[in-house]
Amino acid sequence: MSSYGRSYSSESYAPSAPSLPESYRQQERDRGASGSARPQSSGYGVHQNQQYQQHPPAYGQGQSSSSSGYSGFPPGTHPDVIRSFEMVDVDRSGYIDEKELQRALSSGYQRFNLRTIRLLMFLFKNPHDALRIGPKEFAALWSCLGQWRAIYDRYDRDRSGKIDLFELRDALYGLGYAVPPSVLQILMSKYDDGSGRKIELGFDSFVECGLILKGLTEKFKEKDKRYVGQATFNYDEFMSTVLPFLVAYD
Amino acid sequence: MSSYGRSYSSESYAPSAPSLPESYRQQERDRGASGSARPQSSGYGVHQNQQYQQHPPAYGQGQSSSSSGYSGFPPGTHPDVIRSFEMVDVDRSGYIDEKELQRALSSGYQRFNLRTIRLLMFLFKNPHDALRIGPKEFAALWSCLGQWRAIYDRYDRDRSGKIDLFELRDALYGLGYAVPPSVLQILMSKYDDGSGRKIELGFDSFVECGLILKGLTEKFKEKDKRYVGQATFNYDEFMSTVLPFLVAYD
Repeated sequence: MSSYGRSYSSESYAPSAPSLPESYRQQERDRGASGSARPQSSGYGVHQNQQYQQHPPAYGQGQSSSSSGYSGFPPGTHPDVIRSFEMVDVDRSGYIDEKELQRALSSGYQRFNLRTIRLLMFLFKNPHDALRIGPKEFAALWSCLGQWRAIYDRYDRDRSGKIDLFELRDALYGLGYAVPPSVLQILMSKYDDGSGRKIELGFDSFVECGLILKGLTEKFKEKDKRYVGQATFNYDEFMSTVLPFLVAYD
Repeated sequence: MSSYGRSYSSESYAPSAPSLPESYRQQERDRGASGSARPQSSGYGVHQNQQYQQHPPAYGQGQSSSSSGYSGFPPGTHPDVIRSFEMVDVDRSGYIDEKELQRALSSGYQRFNLRTIRLLMFLFKNPHDALRIGPKEFAALWSCLGQWRAIYDRYDRDRSGKIDLFELRDALYGLGYAVPPSVLQILMSKYDDGSGRKIELGFDSFVECGLILKGLTEKFKEKDKRYVGQATFNYDEFMSTVLPFLVAYD
């Protein structure tokens, strides 16, 4: 199944977008998935298809933030987002740390585990800042989670509140990531409790998986200048690319 | 300082061994380090210099294991190593899990944190096995820790029981890893408690750092077939290389 990352077709809508192999599409037809609910081709880490951009994230758009004391929120930030931030930024420093982020997200989403929170911080914070995020990054993070929540709900086809390997693959595809099952299996093994039962993910773990894939894929793309699905690293670059994920993921 | 991974000299004793830049050696002279205590050139992940192989690990060699009920230990395994294994393998299955490994190592070394234990398991277990290790892997792991302990003690020059960034660099060098300071700084940031104090590592954290570097470096080397300090990955390979570290590191 490694052909996901290597085979390309004229259907691709971006230079880095490998097409789905015919076997995958056949499998989809066999499983009765709706053809209209997914793009026909995608790539690792390509931007969301226009189809998904038509579904705005939960609080990502709305009333103006002009009434807020915070000047850092982008215009149009929903008041609920600003309120969630203000509620936890008790010292009004304009920045929140990981525990505060965990509390802030509880009001609009759920209480995420700290591992997921650390990955969110790591991927959304200003790289020049310490381990904290400001209004702009918080708004982007909130909006991203809204989008992921919508995708998650759409691909939880049996409405179990959990998604399995195939639903995860499709949901990630909906986010623009064509991830080979072999790679997904490594990631899913993280949630194997050893009971022999099928591994399924709640939204928290889905976000955790998605962030790891998003982060690593974007790093890979930075080195895959010609978008051919191949990247060359020297030793320092490789270590400097991978280590921050291990450091963030504590 | 990225020249560590890129510049090579005729002094190198292995094809993949970048030499130390002159600036590094000058710095060493300035710091008064003993020239005879370190190899003059090394590389990322090259095998230990003969000098270090002359110092056998704590329990890695010794009496025969012929009296043991376990047939899986290599000939010459020290009885203390076998005893540590037997002590925790209460069901005599011939395998121990992560909690048992933590207990087994407590008798000869110290109680390592579970993160370090998981990395040890991940890097030493048979890749085809579940999350458990047998006598052969346990003996190798014990021996490796003995070697690392000796190196750690040697480079803790001020006998503080902790090592700082420079001592870590030198200790890793002693283990055969020439790691650029920029990479080490990322790794050290993991142990920054935000107090502004100098970051120092105990033996547990030293082992954790060492295992991460050893594991990633060996993966890099597998793709650096010509030992030129450069490796090309396709997307699937990159993800399949990096993800297991994130999965192991829970």
